[in-house]
Amino acid sequence: MSISRRNFFKRAIISTSAVASIPAIVSSCISSDNKVINDVILKGDVILFQGDSITDAGREKRRELPNNIRSFGAGYAFISASEMLRNMANQDLVIYNRGISGNKVYQLAERWQKDCLNLKPNVLSILIGVNDYWHKPNGNYDGTPEIYENDFRELLNRTKNEFPNIKLVICEPFILPETNAVDESWIEPFSHYQKSAAKLSEEFSAIWVPFQKVFTEAVNVAPAVFWTEDGVHPSMAGCQLMAETWLKVIGV
Amino acid sequence: MSISRRNFFKRAIISTSAVASIPAIVSSCISSDNKVINDVILKGDVILFQGDSITDAGREKRRELPNNIRSFGAGYAFISASEMLRNMANQDLVIYNRGISGNKVYQLAERWQKDCLNLKPNVLSILIGVNDYWHKPNGNYDGTPEIYENDFRELLNRTKNEFPNIKLVICEPFILPETNAVDESWIEPFSHYQKSAAKLSEEFSAIWVPFQKVFTEAVNVAPAVFWTEDGVHPSMAGCQLMAETWLKVIGV
Repeated sequence: MSISRRNFFKRAIISTSAVASIPAIVSSCISSDNKVINDVILKGDVILFQGDSITDAGREKRRELPNNIRSFGAGYAFISASEMLRNMANQDLVIYNRGISGNKVYQLAERWQKDCLNLKPNVLSILIGVNDYWHKPNGNYDGTPEIYENDFRELLNRTKNEFPNIKLVICEPFILPETNAVDESWIEPFSHYQKSAAKLSEEFSAIWVPFQKVFTEAVNVAPAVFWTEDGVHPSMAGCQLMAETWLKVIGV
Repeated sequence: MSISRRNFFKRAIISTSAVASIPAIVSSCISSDNKVINDVILKGDVILFQGDSITDAGREKRRELPNNIRSFGAGYAFISASEMLRNMANQDLVIYNRGISGNKVYQLAERWQKDCLNLKPNVLSILIGVNDYWHKPNGNYDGTPEIYENDFRELLNRTKNEFPNIKLVICEPFILPETNAVDESWIEPFSHYQKSAAKLSEEFSAIWVPFQKVFTEAVNVAPAVFWTEDGVHPSMAGCQLMAETWLKVIGV
């Protein structure tokens, strides 16, 4: 390699100082919000990722196999699941992705028997809410934060009734303004959906994944569009940031 | 969470002892084969992943944008690139995936101007060779290890002539027997292709990524089909193992 060692060293110093901040952000966001629960994932667990397009990530719907690349798309669920499988290679994990693009909470409810209960998950991770708000100003939906909260609570009760010992992971829905689709006007109305998700996480003693907090801090490192071009769907770096956060909270 | 703490603790011990082995495998495979070169990736680098289906990983060919999820597919290149982008968020990295399913070395050569030289990469990672062998017993190709080595050398010379300071990363092509497509009979003939790749890595002072070594060791942790069902294309866990190895060698 024809690279001068001196140059390497000089430039390495620059990059190292900047790089250190993201893992620190993830840790600080988690430690102030969460008790990190180590070893949530145990041998033989059936883990289900549920949500909207952010979870869907272009997965192939024709088959829908566990632990299968095409059935996972390319998003935070793919990276998180791949890392769990690699990390616990001999632990018989069964991991599904059943996110569907455009979904709001009531649409999860409509397919809950088939796309959650029938899979008998031990660990259920849900990221839902941005469309419950987004499709409203669009004119495609007339929901409110109250409808979101009540529907979400009903979904969680239904799940807990069927599987009293299920480990619930509730992910904070997030947005980033100063992007192609989201501006400052989203922040106040959307915060009500976020508060409802946080409230339900408390109510159900779920594991809380503070995505909004992490993305908000990440904007101090690189502009919002670097993490999500439209303010809703994560970039590659955004997916990795989400996976890192998810795995850290879960203790993998 | 209604999980007994005692159960958590008991089962955590089991999983932790098993889990420790994979990162240790990656480290030991790398340290015996490679000098790990830290900070290969620098601010503003243009990084190109090249290869066959393992690199392609179902990427969308219609656009072919850098740093773009759809243009990356879901494989080791997606995970490695996402982690680099996240890790060096403010460092203006530009990362391409131009792997194409089924490619042999001569097919890389045919599209090298468009799919490598025109992109002006600073860092070029190549994983090629399994089809140069595989398509032979298939009856679809009449190449030899000598043709592979000579074509590969020509490709590297052509690249170095255009970009004398390019940082080359050569990935060891790999197979795993006791899988759906690969059996023991592949090992000896395929080893000649692997030796050629290693020889070229030396000749060109490239960074060597010892994938075969890592996968062979990983089989001590979980069966071959867990890492790659057909012995050629990695599973989700296999993709993650590759990304971890690639990133470790590169020093990210």
